[in-house]
Amino acid sequence: MHAGTVRRRHDTTAVNPRATHLSLALRHVAEASGQISRADIAARTGLNRSTASSLIDELITGGLVKETGATPRARAGRPATALALRDDGPAGLGVDVNVDYTAVCVVDLTGAVRYKHVVAVDQRGHTMTEILDRINTLSRAAHAAARADELTLCGSAIAVPGIVDRDRATVTLAPNLGWRDLAVTEVLPADVHGLLDNEANFAALSEPGLLHARASYLYVSGQIGVGAGIVLDGRLYRGTHGWSGEIGHLTVDRDGPPCPCGRRGCLERYAGQEAILRAAGVPSDPGTALGVRPTVALIADRARANDPATLAALTRAGQVLGATLAGCLNLLDLGHVVLGGIYRDLAPWIAPEVEREVATQFLGAPWARPTVEVATYGPEAPAIGAARSVIHDVIGDPLRWLNH
Amino acid sequence: MHAGTVRRRHDTTAVNPRATHLSLALRHVAEASGQISRADIAARTGLNRSTASSLIDELITGGLVKETGATPRARAGRPATALALRDDGPAGLGVDVNVDYTAVCVVDLTGAVRYKHVVAVDQRGHTMTEILDRINTLSRAAHAAARADELTLCGSAIAVPGIVDRDRATVTLAPNLGWRDLAVTEVLPADVHGLLDNEANFAALSEPGLLHARASYLYVSGQIGVGAGIVLDGRLYRGTHGWSGEIGHLTVDRDGPPCPCGRRGCLERYAGQEAILRAAGVPSDPGTALGVRPTVALIADRARANDPATLAALTRAGQVLGATLAGCLNLLDLGHVVLGGIYRDLAPWIAPEVEREVATQFLGAPWARPTVEVATYGPEAPAIGAARSVIHDVIGDPLRWLNH
Repeated sequence: MHAGTVRRRHDTTAVNPRATHLSLALRHVAEASGQISRADIAARTGLNRSTASSLIDELITGGLVKETGATPRARAGRPATALALRDDGPAGLGVDVNVDYTAVCVVDLTGAVRYKHVVAVDQRGHTMTEILDRINTLSRAAHAAARADELTLCGSAIAVPGIVDRDRATVTLAPNLGWRDLAVTEVLPADVHGLLDNEANFAALSEPGLLHARASYLYVSGQIGVGAGIVLDGRLYRGTHGWSGEIGHLTVDRDGPPCPCGRRGCLERYAGQEAILRAAGVPSDPGTALGVRPTVALIADRARANDPATLAALTRAGQVLGATLAGCLNLLDLGHVVLGGIYRDLAPWIAPEVEREVATQFLGAPWARPTVEVATYGPEAPAIGAARSVIHDVIGDPLRWLNH
Repeated sequence: MHAGTVRRRHDTTAVNPRATHLSLALRHVAEASGQISRADIAARTGLNRSTASSLIDELITGGLVKETGATPRARAGRPATALALRDDGPAGLGVDVNVDYTAVCVVDLTGAVRYKHVVAVDQRGHTMTEILDRINTLSRAAHAAARADELTLCGSAIAVPGIVDRDRATVTLAPNLGWRDLAVTEVLPADVHGLLDNEANFAALSEPGLLHARASYLYVSGQIGVGAGIVLDGRLYRGTHGWSGEIGHLTVDRDGPPCPCGRRGCLERYAGQEAILRAAGVPSDPGTALGVRPTVALIADRARANDPATLAALTRAGQVLGATLAGCLNLLDLGHVVLGGIYRDLAPWIAPEVEREVATQFLGAPWARPTVEVATYGPEAPAIGAARSVIHDVIGDPLRWLNH
């Protein structure tokens, strides 16, 4: 299979029992890697033992699954052989073209991050050619690292800060990159252009613990804008056109300050990076090309030094963010909120406010209070989630890998 | 199969290919009833012709599908026999225990409403025994009507204005009925207690056109409270605990009037029935037990007579509702909004405001403007949707009916 030739749409109508059963067996191995036997697969899928065993044989021959010795549990009789995902088979390449940094990473079939590289650079000062050249350079280095690690990159995915048309592999609008109706297949080599999505969506897929548990959660990613990825039952919910999660433009106050989107009082005007900087009295562009991390680190330094304006700005941002998230939970009834992007770095001040708002304003809180968690990964989250989405596709349709 | 013994949870792990294939074939018949042949089923499902044909034979023998003559399309060769859903087989019973009325209805396998009865009565003045007696009386009449029509009621579903625990078939909290932790299986006879859900959720399932098209939409139901049902790809999205759609408590203004939920400035305070009545200067209880319909009819009469206070109240309610719905669309990216409950009766004044707000405030509007539609059914919508949910279960797992 050629890298980058990732299928963009699943046909839910056609039935291919072999593909379905291979995927089902592989998913069970993935969810209990190293802790599951052929007999367990048969029991959990409802397939008969010989069918389950022959599916596993096919996955082993194809380099996706390996036998790892005896299953650890105590049971009468001969111990069963445990099955695990291979970490030297297919891998996914993730690329994130953010406003103020570019990141690439490689994730193997087990979901482990095998390579990552983040370059801080404010794209707003660069031409499209310069941006594309940087992606190519970083991608070539990731390919070389994967080869050196004996991994086979079987697809790639690109995160962008904007609205995308996944089916046409086109960036509809990424204002801060100056991209509009850009078909990535026409500007990037085949080993880079693959799945395409908004960075908050891909970032949501970077959470290892929650995804593994097939949890439903809202991942909110604070950047210059504020975006969210909605994960339902372990799968990204993209909406009708792929535009879901525009939490940054939910209205906090109809009479509030104007927003570039044309509305007034949007969440971004209160809890976005620039709004927090302004409220804290920190210049939004400290005159360098340091990008988001040092700026946010500066805010965190001031908060740790108990600077009153900074603490007040973070408290206010956390309250407004928390109230908006509580509204989202009232609409969607999700059990978890994950704070990513700048909210991860500012979590000591933001998270308690969000927790308080959610606890008091989510209607179901008396019966089940949602948890507020801090994201596992920082700026590399969208690239990791992008690479993971390639792996999800392999697990969702192992035949594509087995036939390659 | 005993009426009321409806399975409450689908096990998504176990694979039963026969059950899956029967459901797939039946769903294709349902989506193109009278317009589809055995060969079409094979082509659309990817099953081979003899498998598809034997599945159809089983559905015919089981009384779910019938042959209706030749398919209408022009094609070379012998015309194929068309397949259609039977309208004299299984049917669902829907019951809606609303604050100011009780409704029952019977829906057959084709989705057609075969019987309905709505009794206007303000439950708030009655004991639980009186409410339950009324449900039983109405349900017995519906059973008799179904029998007279040679339909077999194969399950029932109850809509309530509150929070439910579907798995435990328990009404967690329905404040206006005075119900708390009420197990419907303990207070209602077996031929009534079945699936349980919030009335806005079931109302969303009453929309025939959109559901048939497996569309994704937000159905907003204006009552004394304001609830919403979220339908994704033709299926109700219930959230982690079944509490999704609490749109009535999204914040319009953090400094707005207090809400009984403990927050301030909730949507219900601006666009709920009592809020509209108050703003229009209409007494919320005209001193009779007429219930919601006559009160809303009174508002509509005043609006038609161009009463300035009423027109201003409706414009304001429509604007606030529209802005909130635009926010929901920005989060969920849905293509359609359906206005149900009192918004259906007040649509001439509410809908244009909602359309305007959605068109200007939904971020994706320049590329795809969501449609704002008026609900097909009025107060009977939750009961019809409840009955439809029983039918959905038959189509989702025909083996349960075939084995009964």
